[in-house]
Amino acid sequence: MKIKNIAILTSGGDAPGMNSAIYGAFCECQKNDLKIFGIFNGYDGLIDNNFIELNYSFLSGRINRGGSILRCGRSKRFLKSNHFKLAITNLKNNKIDALIIIGGDGSLKGAMKLRDNGINVICLPGTIDNDLNFTYTIGFDTATNNIVNSIDNICDSLSAFNYGAIIKIMGNKCTDLIDTVGKAINTDLLIKSNDFNITNLAKSIKSNNDGNHLPPIVLVLENSANIENLCEILQEKCKIQFRPHILGYIQRGGTPSAFDRRYGISAGKLAIQSILDKKFNCAIGFDNNSLVSKSIENCFKF
Amino acid sequence: MKIKNIAILTSGGDAPGMNSAIYGAFCECQKNDLKIFGIFNGYDGLIDNNFIELNYSFLSGRINRGGSILRCGRSKRFLKSNHFKLAITNLKNNKIDALIIIGGDGSLKGAMKLRDNGINVICLPGTIDNDLNFTYTIGFDTATNNIVNSIDNICDSLSAFNYGAIIKIMGNKCTDLIDTVGKAINTDLLIKSNDFNITNLAKSIKSNNDGNHLPPIVLVLENSANIENLCEILQEKCKIQFRPHILGYIQRGGTPSAFDRRYGISAGKLAIQSILDKKFNCAIGFDNNSLVSKSIENCFKF
Amino acid sequence: MKIKNIAILTSGGDAPGMNSAIYGAFCECQKNDLKIFGIFNGYDGLIDNNFIELNYSFLSGRINRGGSILRCGRSKRFLKSNHFKLAITNLKNNKIDALIIIGGDGSLKGAMKLRDNGINVICLPGTIDNDLNFTYTIGFDTATNNIVNSIDNICDSLSAFNYGAIIKIMGNKCTDLIDTVGKAINTDLLIKSNDFNITNLAKSIKSNNDGNHLPPIVLVLENSANIENLCEILQEKCKIQFRPHILGYIQRGGTPSAFDRRYGISAGKLAIQSILDKKFNCAIGFDNNSLVSKSIENCFKF
Amino acid sequence: MKIKNIAILTSGGDAPGMNSAIYGAFCECQKNDLKIFGIFNGYDGLIDNNFIELNYSFLSGRINRGGSILRCGRSKRFLKSNHFKLAITNLKNNKIDALIIIGGDGSLKGAMKLRDNGINVICLPGTIDNDLNFTYTIGFDTATNNIVNSIDNICDSLSAFNYGAIIKIMGNKCTDLIDTVGKAINTDLLIKSNDFNITNLAKSIKSNNDGNHLPPIVLVLENSANIENLCEILQEKCKIQFRPHILGYIQRGGTPSAFDRRYGISAGKLAIQSILDKKFNCAIGFDNNSLVSKSIENCFKF
Repeated sequence: MKIKNIAILTSGGDAPGMNSAIYGAFCECQKNDLKIFGIFNGYDGLIDNNFIELNYSFLSGRINRGGSILRCGRSKRFLKSNHFKLAITNLKNNKIDALIIIGGDGSLKGAMKLRDNGINVICLPGTIDNDLNFTYTIGFDTATNNIVNSIDNICDSLSAFNYGAIIKIMGNKCTDLIDTVGKAINTDLLIKSNDFNITNLAKSIKSNNDGNHLPPIVLVLENSANIENLCEILQEKCKIQFRPHILGYIQRGGTPSAFDRRYGISAGKLAIQSILDKKFNCAIGFDNNSLVSKSIENCFKF
Repeated sequence: MKIKNIAILTSGGDAPGMNSAIYGAFCECQKNDLKIFGIFNGYDGLIDNNFIELNYSFLSGRINRGGSILRCGRSKRFLKSNHFKLAITNLKNNKIDALIIIGGDGSLKGAMKLRDNGINVICLPGTIDNDLNFTYTIGFDTATNNIVNSIDNICDSLSAFNYGAIIKIMGNKCTDLIDTVGKAINTDLLIKSNDFNITNLAKSIKSNNDGNHLPPIVLVLENSANIENLCEILQEKCKIQFRPHILGYIQRGGTPSAFDRRYGISAGKLAIQSILDKKFNCAIGFDNNSLVSKSIENCFKF
Repeated sequence: MKIKNIAILTSGGDAPGMNSAIYGAFCECQKNDLKIFGIFNGYDGLIDNNFIELNYSFLSGRINRGGSILRCGRSKRFLKSNHFKLAITNLKNNKIDALIIIGGDGSLKGAMKLRDNGINVICLPGTIDNDLNFTYTIGFDTATNNIVNSIDNICDSLSAFNYGAIIKIMGNKCTDLIDTVGKAINTDLLIKSNDFNITNLAKSIKSNNDGNHLPPIVLVLENSANIENLCEILQEKCKIQFRPHILGYIQRGGTPSAFDRRYGISAGKLAIQSILDKKFNCAIGFDNNSLVSKSIENCFKF
Repeated sequence: MKIKNIAILTSGGDAPGMNSAIYGAFCECQKNDLKIFGIFNGYDGLIDNNFIELNYSFLSGRINRGGSILRCGRSKRFLKSNHFKLAITNLKNNKIDALIIIGGDGSLKGAMKLRDNGINVICLPGTIDNDLNFTYTIGFDTATNNIVNSIDNICDSLSAFNYGAIIKIMGNKCTDLIDTVGKAINTDLLIKSNDFNITNLAKSIKSNNDGNHLPPIVLVLENSANIENLCEILQEKCKIQFRPHILGYIQRGGTPSAFDRRYGISAGKLAIQSILDKKFNCAIGFDNNSLVSKSIENCFKF
């Protein structure tokens, strides 16, 4: 079999650097005279046969932006056997020799299902949650910068007022984002589950509120607490005003960091090389300080 | 009377460019051999005699940051006659010939009270709310940039998902910030009071959701709605997922824009010149495209 | 005559906010059922008949970026009568009822020539140089922010070292950019022409180098001096190390500020309204604090 | 010996994250009831006995900025034996039990000399050049982001014009910065020494200039070429306009990235723990994905 046609999709939540990975794969395809097709809307695009041949003019001016130019999404239909079969059929009808899937935990599970049905897949870890078994996933570094930059702004007002802030942080069930940001801003006031001790938290805040510390910043993992209520409770317990912040998609968007661009581009290129070498059904990502290839099964943290 | 000692304070909410104004005043004092004292914590610092003589080493490395190096605050004590008298006494004991007050609506009311009790005051409009009768207040331009930059990040994810966003915007009772940002991102989905028509809003969102428009972004003035509830209602009515965002102090912090620096520095300098000219009891700010001086009474919008 | 088809081009140097203007015009056309065509590469695209009908998918994800999605350029061919005639013919063959031209000084001169040959034109001032007779041109505000942000970075190192910096600033023959940045960073060390007095400059630098001032920053208008040589001369004269910086297109790119977006979008919309009102052959821009329409002749500063 | 007094200095070129490291060390000292003294101006401050006891108010509002609040510098006097002896004497007179030195290649050589004269030293790798034998030095990650962000701006104009850019990159003799940025922006047009082949470079540029590639960006390591001359040569050879950019200290300043903050804070804390454990005369930095301690001798790349 000679490799001729490759397809690529982004699935799950978008992550900055996904476009870099698409661009890296595109460049390597150009170099090796391969066609590469983008599939829109993640697995839904497979079902709907929503393919576009990638070319320079489609990519131009968008590759250094956050989000995904192929759009993302979680597909409920993909879990149903009739739609799944349609996806397989579309890949075959389009003569796709290998499919690159960029996404997180859930997306890789979909990739395994395709693999088990005879599709050649290569996975790239793309999610700000870092919920896969690589040192970093594409997008994680940018997300930490986005959050820290937002907190810089917040601190300007906190310092002017001696107020505190409560900030909701993404990550789903993975605590890497909240832990890493906590270290970068030097706070250990972290709430990572519903099951936290408000009395200890208040005590810890009060003990540091001696004019010799930065204003208290409490980071709350999404789904762990209603932060507007929490503001009121802490205000009463600590006699400090707290302000709620929901960063939402501020965390996830924006231009990717240098690290995530380099990661995305080089992983995208390596994915194509792996395909040309007929090394399929693996995931390529950063461990320690280099790109490695491992089995998809070995990628799951949870 | 020869002018020798000047004092300066920042009051109300902090605003980016306040430090530029302090720096401008400081530079002009240096040039004219005047002493200038910073008062911490707004009017509370007057009561507590919390003065510091400004010098280069105190200002160094901080003047191009948001917030206020003199800290801000709303003083309840200042409204009581015994504390107010103490404030007057402290100004006299420190031989302050004129006091520069940087703040918004409430701060200028305090300034009038001081003026009516024989203190020479000069006001500079410093608030992101733009709730004074100048074309712009110091900090407003930076706040619009902060919000628009945050929305850029948010849009990356919205576009990847075809979701909508609901974003809470500061401004207190003044709609300048929400109106201006609305124009900059080209949305007319604005909620500016409790009294809004949810049915019309939903209709307007649905009519634009034809794949030929940007994702819907609803801006909500603070105190107008619970945005998490609103997300749920719009989701049901429009069949589009909405995500809530509380930008909070992200809006107010960060390094001031070039405009706010130029504004702050030149207004700070002009305040000192006005004092040297014995033109007291006025407010200096931008109208149209130049700095003007007007009576404090003429500054109120509400 | 019923207006049906509009064309738009960006000419001269690109400026952040040009895309906002294109987007504003596009939205207003959508609302009024008009077709709008983008012309690539400025006046060259007129000659080469390089038209594209604008639609949402072409604009998506690019409108909040700097540069111009229609590309820019200065056309030498446009000055020759055979090419100029071809441009006119192409406009007529494409049944263009009115042409919107976004650009600076030189671009508006081209617009007058088209107008004098029977083409309906509307001009929008788009240039970071601010070299037209409006309070602001589209892009100027963003450029001042770009420069000031770069200087913030530079100052971190200068402060750590007590070095000075020499920074080359764009503006062509217009000094608005260098003057405005000078005020925003509070330096009066400006070189605006070849004819400057190095001895006075050195004296001024030395007199402020007493440890009570920020590090010296010399701003040099492009074409006024070789800044690498200047560094050496000042180093010798002042006994302070100076570092040269050529900001180049850093000044001109990047996402537009809130002000330039609002300006671009609203000017683009107003251009369409003006066309629908059959008010042609004018320029629309910001004077003081509102959009005004004036004759093209009245736009030139030089 | 019970550890009581610690000193810290930053030497060589400043790097973003140096302040984070100072802050991390300060926090850990607070926790362990140690005094920590900052020494200004690198090794010169040792000679001049320029010590300050660090406290919260000195650090406040400055720790998340680039540069160094203790200032940096290369000391020629430190190489002379009389001044070196004075440095030793000052450390002893101030009863300093251990000295933390944050800097690059040259700074660590100074540290070894102090160590060989009986001073307990701990080194932290702080330099944007990455010229030490760790995976990353403090400041390197931020510098890559600064450069990539600047290039984003530059690309907006390049794309609008089909011009190329030549950009001078720091790094001294170390190519890590230029190589890493090259990968992040996907260019292999790198000039890393005086000895490069201009004909091959021009050929490579021309072969990619087919309208199907991004505009050509040539990165030039400092001291490798006069970039203004190079622009002219390439213009002639490639028939593409090139614009020169000297980023200078834009690369080195600015707020540190989340990574560099986390690195700085945790390395600063670990330095104090190492001192408390009486593990002196080592360097602490990131290898792969964790902080390690190694002998100073093992830190040199060149």
